[in-house]
Amino acid sequence: MSNELIRLAHGAGGRLTGELVEELFLDRFRNPELATLSDSSRLETGPGRLYFTTDSYVVSPLFFPGGDIGSLAVHGTVNDLAMNGARPLYLSAGFILEEGLERKLLERVVDSMARAADAAGVKIVTGDTKVVPKGLADGLYLNTAGIGLRPEDLPLLGPEAIREGDAILINGSIGDHGAAIITAREAGFENCTISSDSAALWELVAALETGGVRLHALRDATRGGLGGILAELADQAGAEFLIREEKIPVREEVRGVCEIFGFDPLFLANEGKMVIFCPADESDSALEILRRHPLGRQAAVIGRVTAAGSSRPRVTLETLIGGHRLIDQPSGELVPRIC
Amino acid sequence: MSNELIRLAHGAGGRLTGELVEELFLDRFRNPELATLSDSSRLETGPGRLYFTTDSYVVSPLFFPGGDIGSLAVHGTVNDLAMNGARPLYLSAGFILEEGLERKLLERVVDSMARAADAAGVKIVTGDTKVVPKGLADGLYLNTAGIGLRPEDLPLLGPEAIREGDAILINGSIGDHGAAIITAREAGFENCTISSDSAALWELVAALETGGVRLHALRDATRGGLGGILAELADQAGAEFLIREEKIPVREEVRGVCEIFGFDPLFLANEGKMVIFCPADESDSALEILRRHPLGRQAAVIGRVTAAGSSRPRVTLETLIGGHRLIDQPSGELVPRIC
Repeated sequence: MSNELIRLAHGAGGRLTGELVEELFLDRFRNPELATLSDSSRLETGPGRLYFTTDSYVVSPLFFPGGDIGSLAVHGTVNDLAMNGARPLYLSAGFILEEGLERKLLERVVDSMARAADAAGVKIVTGDTKVVPKGLADGLYLNTAGIGLRPEDLPLLGPEAIREGDAILINGSIGDHGAAIITAREAGFENCTISSDSAALWELVAALETGGVRLHALRDATRGGLGGILAELADQAGAEFLIREEKIPVREEVRGVCEIFGFDPLFLANEGKMVIFCPADESDSALEILRRHPLGRQAAVIGRVTAAGSSRPRVTLETLIGGHRLIDQPSGELVPRIC
Repeated sequence: MSNELIRLAHGAGGRLTGELVEELFLDRFRNPELATLSDSSRLETGPGRLYFTTDSYVVSPLFFPGGDIGSLAVHGTVNDLAMNGARPLYLSAGFILEEGLERKLLERVVDSMARAADAAGVKIVTGDTKVVPKGLADGLYLNTAGIGLRPEDLPLLGPEAIREGDAILINGSIGDHGAAIITAREAGFENCTISSDSAALWELVAALETGGVRLHALRDATRGGLGGILAELADQAGAEFLIREEKIPVREEVRGVCEIFGFDPLFLANEGKMVIFCPADESDSALEILRRHPLGRQAAVIGRVTAAGSSRPRVTLETLIGGHRLIDQPSGELVPRIC
């Protein structure tokens, strides 16, 4: 059974689709909502503000040190909810499979999704499978949409809430995911030890809030890297940020890969890193909470908001040698298909 | 601007992604939820049971008589919610674009999505764009997930609610979508007048319920066609259905295409047709309500539930000449990539 290849008929909605769903998905994503196999799934949510998000995943290669397209698709969508302070509850999964894909490979991806969802406390409750002819995809593409809930009595997080003087923190070293993908693609880096940082960040967010930190804004530093998302946030907030390069954690191996390939870790993608904006006098307490968690051991205060309500939003980097450099959104393509 | 081609950088999360989002998506899907461009969108729902669904769309060709991948992606997901009696409220949109795609073509698809969403009363509130290298997709693939709400005081719809004696209705002729796709692909059918039936069915569902029809189950007859979804429903319900071929509306042109290509309209896909299960004594009233609506002019009672709680669930077709034939789920691939 597991040596089978995916055929067009697996996406045709007939008996083969049904078998694939029952044997492969139902078994791994076991939950009562999905088990009805209804056109749509009925959810229990309770009171609170509802959040909704989606991402498609086209990462290449499908498996890389520290993760795969399945765990990435869970973490990415869970994090998009967490960045608004919403507890992730439910995910959908939409598969686009390439004809000829090994069923075994699909099983590995689905296993990984199921583990990641379990660990993140979310349920995959609805899904869809399509198959396209050989050559019209790259193994498989995956979409996850997600629903989360934020208690009504907690304030809204976002660029509007960023204030002058806010501290800017990050929960760990940057560029790991981008560097892991680059080295996974290149011959000669088989012994490279860089793992993706792909991880679900909700627990960290919850720890900060239950620890009493008054969060203003969160953003995960995915595509565009730390530099890209800070530039975007400054624009959205109408604010000016000052970031100190010496404070930004970068792993030695990542720095090495960047030197070899000519990349700046500031613009390399992360999949388990977020920037945190909170009042300056709460940054010590935030740091302490972050460092207590495995995903925040290397957390650092990397800068501050020097102006809000600015007519010239910008991000300034104070370099290691004390110079100042403006950080802009990357305009081109640094590393394609990192997620 | 509009003669541009989509580049890998449009999916990289940097400035070009931002421009694409602002110029192309925000302008067309204009709504306050999307405009925040947050990681996830905050929704207003009000009380009721929440429903969640997703579908990916890989239809070929992207444009066909009666619709395109954009309108199809809205209708399909709206209908998945409507089949549970849930009012469709919010959609997500995940684009996977092929490098080199004409921006003009993408604009047409997005325009079509926006019109379909407006007409169906849903808002596209969150989205994502990825770009894959030329040759690794077929123009574009699209995923929509949807959220809908059903009032708490209305009963749950589904196979469990199907009862012996229930009438089985359909809202119009079958096989239109499948036949439209087939003829759109074949040379020599340029003058063919078959249009897809792609449409949002929520209004019809709402009309039935506000008209007092006690719905038991609904299912849209998409992949697998009317025959396929009846066989699946019979299995899920543990029920036996008797369907009368002479009652099933089939357009002459669709019958003609089926004869030429050797298809059975019973298994051709529909994108605006649903089967309706309701108490037999309400079928006249249901028919009347359906026929008053443009999407139900040709509605018909096509059969009935002959047994519930059956140990041998099955669908029997009484043919035009009075014979009986068991209807099973199609095992293979009838027409690939119809949605």
